[in-house]
Amino acid sequence: MNKIVEEKLMQRACELSVISTEKGCGPFGCVITDASYNILAEGHNQVTELNDPTAHAEIVTIRKACQVISNYNLSGCKLFSSCEPCPMCLSAIYWSQIVDVHYSNTRVDAKNIGFDDEFIYDELTKDIEDRKVKLKKIDSSSVLDSFNIWSNMENKLMY
Amino acid sequence: MNKIVEEKLMQRACELSVISTEKGCGPFGCVITDASYNILAEGHNQVTELNDPTAHAEIVTIRKACQVISNYNLSGCKLFSSCEPCPMCLSAIYWSQIVDVHYSNTRVDAKNIGFDDEFIYDELTKDIEDRKVKLKKIDSSSVLDSFNIWSNMENKLMY
Repeated sequence: MNKIVEEKLMQRACELSVISTEKGCGPFGCVITDASYNILAEGHNQVTELNDPTAHAEIVTIRKACQVISNYNLSGCKLFSSCEPCPMCLSAIYWSQIVDVHYSNTRVDAKNIGFDDEFIYDELTKDIEDRKVKLKKIDSSSVLDSFNIWSNMENKLMY
Repeated sequence: MNKIVEEKLMQRACELSVISTEKGCGPFGCVITDASYNILAEGHNQVTELNDPTAHAEIVTIRKACQVISNYNLSGCKLFSSCEPCPMCLSAIYWSQIVDVHYSNTRVDAKNIGFDDEFIYDELTKDIEDRKVKLKKIDSSSVLDSFNIWSNMENKLMY
């Protein structure tokens, strides 16, 4: 039973990826449901449409679903992506607390049409000094101020 | 000369992290400049404020800077973050084409006050079947449709 519902939801994510492509956006679609498979939000890649390099299908849809339930925590929800998430989106999935993810195209399929998620996966495993992005530590006199304030705050909203 | 400017910009990122904390948001701030160190955008963590688990300081600021220059590509820009970016933000930095990143607090400092970026870094290096997030491949009859359309499109906007 769940298998049929999951396949239908994946079919919808793939439809969204086609709609996206036909609009000239990246070929990626996503659906997020609640624990009972009710759709909370749908989205597609909007990087070029919105001038937003973070507007991958999964991020767009996570942001929408959070607005629908007025919460930054999507634990218990399920995510259906037409393609295996890139490291940015997979990390966003961790932060959103979703643990149930379904995908169809793989990151190798994505690489074959020019989307090199694999490159970023590789970069993240490297030591800081070996990455293409140059990360330089600057010590600031106030560097730990906000962390100290945060540590000492009562009733703070953890996420 | 650049060193003094960079230290000032880091000081500003740290100030923004304090402002964020005092608002009850996560203790993280960010500044993005153009190649000549002119500030394009400033931001801070807004996860709980906006109900958006992707609203980390760097993502918020990347999105703002892209709106300022009306482009999804920030190559040549410089990013100053009060803390070493988490995997989501570091991946967003790769997608934005920024290669010049400065940070102050480390991911170990962040872990010590309860922000476990390290956990996600570890998860990303694991095989799919060993991750806490369960990634399940579902084959869809239309799975490669959008990728095929994309491959065959002329004049598409790559990003």
